[in-house]
Amino acid sequence: MSRPNIVVLGAGYGGIMTTVRLQKELKANDANITLVNKNDYHYQTTWLHEISAGTLHHDRARIPIGDLIDFNRVNFIQDTVLSIDPEGQRVQLEEGELTYDYLVIGLGFETATFGIEGLLEHAHSITNINSSRLIREEIESNFAKYNNEPEERDDLLTIVVGGAGFTGIEFLGEIANRVPELCEEYDIPREKVRIINVEAGPTALAGFDPELVEYAMNRLEEKGVEFRISTMIKKVTEDGIVVEKDDEQEMIPSRNVVWAAGVTGNSIVGESGFEVNRNKVPVREDLRAPEYDNVFVVGDCAVLMNPETERPYPPTAQIAIQMAELTARNLKQVVHGNNELEPFEFDNKGTVASLGNTDAIGVIFGDRKLFGRSASIMKKVIDNRYLLKLGGVGLFLKKGKLDMYH
Amino acid sequence: MSRPNIVVLGAGYGGIMTTVRLQKELKANDANITLVNKNDYHYQTTWLHEISAGTLHHDRARIPIGDLIDFNRVNFIQDTVLSIDPEGQRVQLEEGELTYDYLVIGLGFETATFGIEGLLEHAHSITNINSSRLIREEIESNFAKYNNEPEERDDLLTIVVGGAGFTGIEFLGEIANRVPELCEEYDIPREKVRIINVEAGPTALAGFDPELVEYAMNRLEEKGVEFRISTMIKKVTEDGIVVEKDDEQEMIPSRNVVWAAGVTGNSIVGESGFEVNRNKVPVREDLRAPEYDNVFVVGDCAVLMNPETERPYPPTAQIAIQMAELTARNLKQVVHGNNELEPFEFDNKGTVASLGNTDAIGVIFGDRKLFGRSASIMKKVIDNRYLLKLGGVGLFLKKGKLDMYH
Repeated sequence: MSRPNIVVLGAGYGGIMTTVRLQKELKANDANITLVNKNDYHYQTTWLHEISAGTLHHDRARIPIGDLIDFNRVNFIQDTVLSIDPEGQRVQLEEGELTYDYLVIGLGFETATFGIEGLLEHAHSITNINSSRLIREEIESNFAKYNNEPEERDDLLTIVVGGAGFTGIEFLGEIANRVPELCEEYDIPREKVRIINVEAGPTALAGFDPELVEYAMNRLEEKGVEFRISTMIKKVTEDGIVVEKDDEQEMIPSRNVVWAAGVTGNSIVGESGFEVNRNKVPVREDLRAPEYDNVFVVGDCAVLMNPETERPYPPTAQIAIQMAELTARNLKQVVHGNNELEPFEFDNKGTVASLGNTDAIGVIFGDRKLFGRSASIMKKVIDNRYLLKLGGVGLFLKKGKLDMYH
Repeated sequence: MSRPNIVVLGAGYGGIMTTVRLQKELKANDANITLVNKNDYHYQTTWLHEISAGTLHHDRARIPIGDLIDFNRVNFIQDTVLSIDPEGQRVQLEEGELTYDYLVIGLGFETATFGIEGLLEHAHSITNINSSRLIREEIESNFAKYNNEPEERDDLLTIVVGGAGFTGIEFLGEIANRVPELCEEYDIPREKVRIINVEAGPTALAGFDPELVEYAMNRLEEKGVEFRISTMIKKVTEDGIVVEKDDEQEMIPSRNVVWAAGVTGNSIVGESGFEVNRNKVPVREDLRAPEYDNVFVVGDCAVLMNPETERPYPPTAQIAIQMAELTARNLKQVVHGNNELEPFEFDNKGTVASLGNTDAIGVIFGDRKLFGRSASIMKKVIDNRYLLKLGGVGLFLKKGKLDMYH
């Protein structure tokens, strides 16, 4: 009997953790494992706000695939996925084609623009390593330009962040810390710089405890962030953004528009014949696609209801990792001929949003609220725990956040 | 009898050295000394090519005025000169007006565009700290952009340098060393990057010994520089440059056009009623303006014939510094009532052009040619000698090039 082919698409949190676990738990004769990824590295999506702000170098947040995967056990293909044919059990790549017996889709998120005119062309999104270091460079470049212009151009020094969700708030925390450094570097008076957050919903950090939200907003306001809550972005142009509140429109001149709102699943999934909602597959409890017993979906391309809250699980790293761990266990059952699959059960380890390097807010143990220094340390503990899980002590020492107390 | 007012305009090589020497050689009762400068720092114009390439941080190349000038002895005004009225003995500043008994003009150079269409708008010039760090940032930003584009955009990775004179060649040496680092930083294959030099004249480094020119061009070509000699830049657009050779035109797509050719004197001098040639005052042998006994001009705003070569002295730091030293001596004579002024005599200490951190070419002792490592060390010796002269051992240790042997 031939060994089944397991193909994993994507090396984000879901894909890489599935592969690392399969490599560990399956014997060489159990299955052929193939991992496909666009880049030869895995990266920490939850650290991209730091790269974007320029407070962390992107090499700190990425890990060569070869440091995580044993190429004697796993066939790694660096290529871009173009489409999936679940009927034919094939994956079309830019440079070739793959067939599979079992497929794990971990292709991650795309930016949702909500139809806002000019957003894709004129705003930058915190999406991946490439887009994040471009945000860093564009902001630096605009600050460098300021003292070369014959007139005072405030648009160069105005940073607009669209969205006050998790990523938006974390980016605000970093960029507020970075601005004084940028001012020093480019001889700009701090008071010339504006950091404006625009949030369409009625609150920042929707879903968080109001006391935590208030703390976060106060701390960011102290660092100079201006919040525009219940305010819509109507349009983004080369020169700035048009916002609307209470039927009144305003143009905010800005060359630094960062979009940190709304994500959807990967459009490849939406275009490959799966039943989807915003490119996300509404998976069964065992994370398989409704129509295909041999297709698992993990991370941001999957959507699953949380029976406790009766709302879908949010697209977080923590959930992607737990989905991956479950999928590796279930695939082990399947290749051993056992078709009783384990359902997904979320083990909530808490949620912490950073507000810069030494400040944060969060909830752990279900209802314990954390603020400031202690929340910031917890955030680093969570990040380090992931590295230990993924690559052991070696990886933790190499890429971990070891400056926990400052 | 009241003390005469000496006003020095500009804190470049000429202005700062004049002021430092006056401060040292005049007694407090001899004269009031006022220095006017746009910035609160002096900078090393001859290091700007390194800042532009990103191989040296701009703070290494600038020195706070307060580190060089004793504010109890010299009145420092940070302001921009708008115009000079040599008849009325007044200087108009952005924020006020000054009168003088003796004036020293050291307002430096401006970029000459030779009427090339689009040059000012779409090319960057290696002019000052602001423009140089902008060049660094724009190149980084374009490299960062590359992997975010759906199509391969070679224009982002093509660096065009206009002019193969001293500054052009020195910038080429630095940028050729920097490109491998940029490729590493932004995940770009080195072979995608082009560095093109366009020179209108029949040779690079006009005026240098042909053997030195050949060495420089060979070394730069080894590092990937493509030379287009006897080639005119006809036009610069947002997308690139149009060049012409032997009546044939070619468009080179590039987002990184750096103009390192042609300088004129400061246009303020041209507009203030002096007899000028390209904004340079054809000074008398004692560096005074032809029409005004109380106006001295030093550095790039002065033009003086070299009796040996029967050509004007070139606009170099070495000459500006020697002009400043002479002017301070002559002003000392004048305020002491002696009107016999010393004429300018050039003491040629040699010329060295760097080709990156560890390579250079040059001529010292009149005709001794230097190549490679030894020329590079001489270059650093010259730079260090200036700092010793300007601010003593303290300044040399703080800002000197101490990594002389690598």
